[in-house]
Amino acid sequence: MNDARPHRIDVALVHYPVVNRDGKIIGSAVTNLDLHDIARAGRTYGVEACWIVTPYADQRELAGQIVRHWTDGYGGTVNPDRREALSLVKICADLEEVIAGTTAKWGKQAAGTGHLRSAAGKDRKLCSGPGHATPKDEPLLLLFGTAWGLAPEAVAAADAVLPPIRGRSDFNHLSVRSAVAIILDRLLGE
Amino acid sequence: MNDARPHRIDVALVHYPVVNRDGKIIGSAVTNLDLHDIARAGRTYGVEACWIVTPYADQRELAGQIVRHWTDGYGGTVNPDRREALSLVKICADLEEVIAGTTAKWGKQAAGTGHLRSAAGKDRKLCSGPGHATPKDEPLLLLFGTAWGLAPEAVAAADAVLPPIRGRSDFNHLSVRSAVAIILDRLLGE
Repeated sequence: MNDARPHRIDVALVHYPVVNRDGKIIGSAVTNLDLHDIARAGRTYGVEACWIVTPYADQRELAGQIVRHWTDGYGGTVNPDRREALSLVKICADLEEVIAGTTAKWGKQAAGTGHLRSAAGKDRKLCSGPGHATPKDEPLLLLFGTAWGLAPEAVAAADAVLPPIRGRSDFNHLSVRSAVAIILDRLLGE
Repeated sequence: MNDARPHRIDVALVHYPVVNRDGKIIGSAVTNLDLHDIARAGRTYGVEACWIVTPYADQRELAGQIVRHWTDGYGGTVNPDRREALSLVKICADLEEVIAGTTAKWGKQAAGTGHLRSAAGKDRKLCSGPGHATPKDEPLLLLFGTAWGLAPEAVAAADAVLPPIRGRSDFNHLSVRSAVAIILDRLLGE
């Protein structure tokens, strides 16, 4: 165990406000496999909650139906591991709701300052390097943008911005599912 | 750059032989987003080719149609980044074809022994830790199993087996897409 790793961490997958390829602010559609992959990675790395953020009521309803199939329905019966992962998912309308939720559960528990530390990337290629471990007593909310990434207003609201994931090239177009997996491994992996 | 990182690396996503939840050997179906996510991660980390291995002709045809939409068709016109990633995909019928392909391109180039080093996991939760860097002159073929992971015969044919990805729990059910992203980052990330 790396003692510098935060002990309490949430992930938020943001569908609004994000930008499209032209940099315009849009709301993106919820992708079924995002829920599965991010919940499974979250469960693997000890994430407390995976927030799915979309202002569209029909998208929240769709996401809720998918999750309930695995948490309460037939899916969880035949695949308990998937139920365990998808039980981390919380669906909400906006970032304010995420902040309210994390503050409610962490606000009084947070040692020292008691405030939340947030990290967001300018785009979906959000990432952290080995030097970005946070104090273990400080809760961490990681924001990830879908589409072409978080809108500037969402980035500006964060306390910190993680650097882009770099491989061996300038190609920087990972899926948000892959980016979440890599960041969690860098921050929380053994 | 970490000089211990291999310079030539291929990834193979195996749909047969893999096992189901009961440990029986099956052939799994090709998943559209596997192609995208693994190709995008592969392109990010400098992978030479992403092999999609399935013995089913109709599945190879389907995978080929998906890839061509992005490499030759309309998809690549509107999204050149996706074209660049999916151009790494090679579709083939079995592992023998992968080995033949990698041997053909690497056989005479490989310094020293000239043989391929392969690594496979007992299941989809295949991974590597920091101690698993390979000599940089030795080409590396990474095998990943879909469904509940590579069949024992595929694991036995590999030269090495990478340890499971560990997070903060015993939960070990990442998607193969996430596992590929994490392993490439551990082996090849900055």
